Amino acid sequence: MPKRVTNVVVIGAGFAGLHCCRGLRNVPVNIALFDRNNYHLFQPLLYQVATAALSPADIAFPIRSIFSGQKNVDCVLSEVTSIDLAKNCINAGDLCIDYDYLVVAAGATHSYFGRDEWEKFAPGLKRVEDAIEIRKRILLAYEEAEHEEDESERRAKLTFVVVGGGPTGVELAGALREIAVEQIQKDYRNIDTSTARVILVEANDRVLKNMHPKLSEKAKEALAKMGVEIRLSGRVTQIDDGGVCVGTERIGANNVFWAAGVKANPLGKSLGVPLDRAGRVDVNADLSIPGYPNAFVIGDLCSIVDKKTNAPVPGLAPAAMQMGDHVAKIIRQEVTGNVKVENRIPFAYWDKGTMATIGKAKAVADIQGWKFSGFIAWCMWSGIHLLFLIGFRSKVIVLINWLWNYWFDSKGARLITGDFKPRITRMRDVTPAEEPYAV
Amino acid sequence: MPKRVTNVVVIGAGFAGLHCCRGLRNVPVNIALFDRNNYHLFQPLLYQVATAALSPADIAFPIRSIFSGQKNVDCVLSEVTSIDLAKNCINAGDLCIDYDYLVVAAGATHSYFGRDEWEKFAPGLKRVEDAIEIRKRILLAYEEAEHEEDESERRAKLTFVVVGGGPTGVELAGALREIAVEQIQKDYRNIDTSTARVILVEANDRVLKNMHPKLSEKAKEALAKMGVEIRLSGRVTQIDDGGVCVGTERIGANNVFWAAGVKANPLGKSLGVPLDRAGRVDVNADLSIPGYPNAFVIGDLCSIVDKKTNAPVPGLAPAAMQMGDHVAKIIRQEVTGNVKVENRIPFAYWDKGTMATIGKAKAVADIQGWKFSGFIAWCMWSGIHLLFLIGFRSKVIVLINWLWNYWFDSKGARLITGDFKPRITRMRDVTPAEEPYAV
Repeated sequence: MPKRVTNVVVIGAGFAGLHCCRGLRNVPVNIALFDRNNYHLFQPLLYQVATAALSPADIAFPIRSIFSGQKNVDCVLSEVTSIDLAKNCINAGDLCIDYDYLVVAAGATHSYFGRDEWEKFAPGLKRVEDAIEIRKRILLAYEEAEHEEDESERRAKLTFVVVGGGPTGVELAGALREIAVEQIQKDYRNIDTSTARVILVEANDRVLKNMHPKLSEKAKEALAKMGVEIRLSGRVTQIDDGGVCVGTERIGANNVFWAAGVKANPLGKSLGVPLDRAGRVDVNADLSIPGYPNAFVIGDLCSIVDKKTNAPVPGLAPAAMQMGDHVAKIIRQEVTGNVKVENRIPFAYWDKGTMATIGKAKAVADIQGWKFSGFIAWCMWSGIHLLFLIGFRSKVIVLINWLWNYWFDSKGARLITGDFKPRITRMRDVTPAEEPYAV
Repeated sequence: MPKRVTNVVVIGAGFAGLHCCRGLRNVPVNIALFDRNNYHLFQPLLYQVATAALSPADIAFPIRSIFSGQKNVDCVLSEVTSIDLAKNCINAGDLCIDYDYLVVAAGATHSYFGRDEWEKFAPGLKRVEDAIEIRKRILLAYEEAEHEEDESERRAKLTFVVVGGGPTGVELAGALREIAVEQIQKDYRNIDTSTARVILVEANDRVLKNMHPKLSEKAKEALAKMGVEIRLSGRVTQIDDGGVCVGTERIGANNVFWAAGVKANPLGKSLGVPLDRAGRVDVNADLSIPGYPNAFVIGDLCSIVDKKTNAPVPGLAPAAMQMGDHVAKIIRQEVTGNVKVENRIPFAYWDKGTMATIGKAKAVADIQGWKFSGFIAWCMWSGIHLLFLIGFRSKVIVLINWLWNYWFDSKGARLITGDFKPRITRMRDVTPAEEPYAV
């Protein structure tokens, strides 16, 4: 009789799914790893693709390559369309796959808080395609401003609004000011790019609200010093192609970027189990779905309260990795027959700290109660991100790009690709020749 | 009275346009440099983007940065739509610009020899977007083949046909075989990627017909040794979504790439002057348009016979650079009043040689009658391409990527981006568990 093989289906190759699969190496299971992309994306650096510092390939690593040496993983480039928990199967296109264990790590996407019509005016930053779109808009804004006749149109093109003062919003706003002031100024003839306004709108009364108030204050000061205008307790009431309304104030801006809300992947809904307000799945202490001990939800799609702090486990990469490791351990123990389902250990989140970068040589970090800011926090931030980036080649190339940016204030990936139609209405004012060239 | 300024309009920031603008530094002219992209593309390495070895940003450099120190250049991101030689003006969108000198360096695009309907089945390789599309098709072919139930469908997905045996076709075919045999084999579970067929179709009786027959033979041997199937004197009679007809033979293939014909940019037509069969402008010995001594056509868009060899000057980067330098010199001399139009020197092409790479440590080079092949030609090819690549950062990053590919047989930019819908019909054959996980 053929040997019994346990089928594990993992949905999503983000930090959570990746760590779960890695934790199952050398375990006699057959893993089908589904993702709608062929690469694992290192999301914490995605804003650097959006701001032309890095190329997509520098922070995206082929999933197949990650598992080329782990023969029990079968990578499937396909979007899972539905999950049937009762029948222990999932559907992806025309495929229907049975599983013994299911691990859903499908992540999160932007939430426009019910105003989805804002998306086309204010793209968010979750996928490679988003970053390329934002990069295009930033670069195109300067190109058009350079050749724009109308003063107020030019002003709107040179105004960038970032909605959301979390780490992504802070990083994006800082990078936008750096581009304007340090990196492209000498490339333009008709405009002074340093006059570009960057406005960061945050609904709370401080930026980086998940960090210590002291660090929020540090970050705010650093941003203000760079020339970022910060609107705290600011509520966005309208976004259209001409600008943003924050409370009653109208800001004329052609470039609005969304870093405000996240909501769970719609796949969570298809489970038919209770969800929290953001659409995330309320899981048991072992990360399994209530009533389905063989099905787990991990990463940004899962909602669980940290027993130690009584606060929700945050939607951060370290939490996702730890969840992946935890579920891998449970499956490993049960498949090898060492532990029974009733003896599963609960998930315990180890908060290693949080950090955010603000600009060149400027960051804040909150590590186990220790607070760092400025150059030292920036070095820590850089080191940790390089450490966790997959692939030695990527580490080297990202490092070179960073050093380059640091020393030469120059960004390497200033490409406008895809479809675009720039608006060009004026040329440089020059005195024309007295007469055209005579034949 | 304001000082007289001579207006120069340059269309296209390829090798020709770039060299022309650079040659006009420190000359009292006002240059408007039009390009529909914001970057100068190093086209000779574009096939490496298409085959996932490099990122677009590694071989594309912002035009503005190139001229940030040359204040007489105004870069305009806009497509020139028409040229009025009689009125000395050009149109770009809503703009109409007068010029004293015009330099048209708009380059070439693919020619499907009147079968434009083939384009969607067999994309060519001229722009960054083309390279990303070809990369997507290559990577998707393997992803789909890995999970394809039907044997003949799988075969078609693993068959790559390159039409055209010039340098681009040879480089592409070689790289496709290398990917299949050396670089991704261990990443797949259900297919043996080394069984992928790569077929190079060339209408002539040898590949690299612009090089010495000995080198054509060397290249053919090297390709054959790598497993590329070469169809010389092959005429493509049909391309559709299922395959290619070469003469009377039908090849089932889902991946066809076009490296066969080029035709001039349609802008040439709008000049209303005599064109050659490929739509290129027949120019005078000084590269000016007959009847319009203040308007030049240079680069791939120009048709001129080399007086020394009586052969047409080839559409290669060195020729384009030399033409740009030549026209800059003419303008410089006339603007500074040293030389009159009747004393212009004719353009003389200096053939520095031609080279093409075939694969890792394999290339052919024909330098001033000296013939090289194998490792030494490959080193020459690599060195010269690094030398001419713009920007030190790009040189370093391309070098690292090449060394990486050389030592580890691994490509760094294996990303599928943009819209796609993979066809997935089977999973790995595994023995299912005897019973699903019991609650």
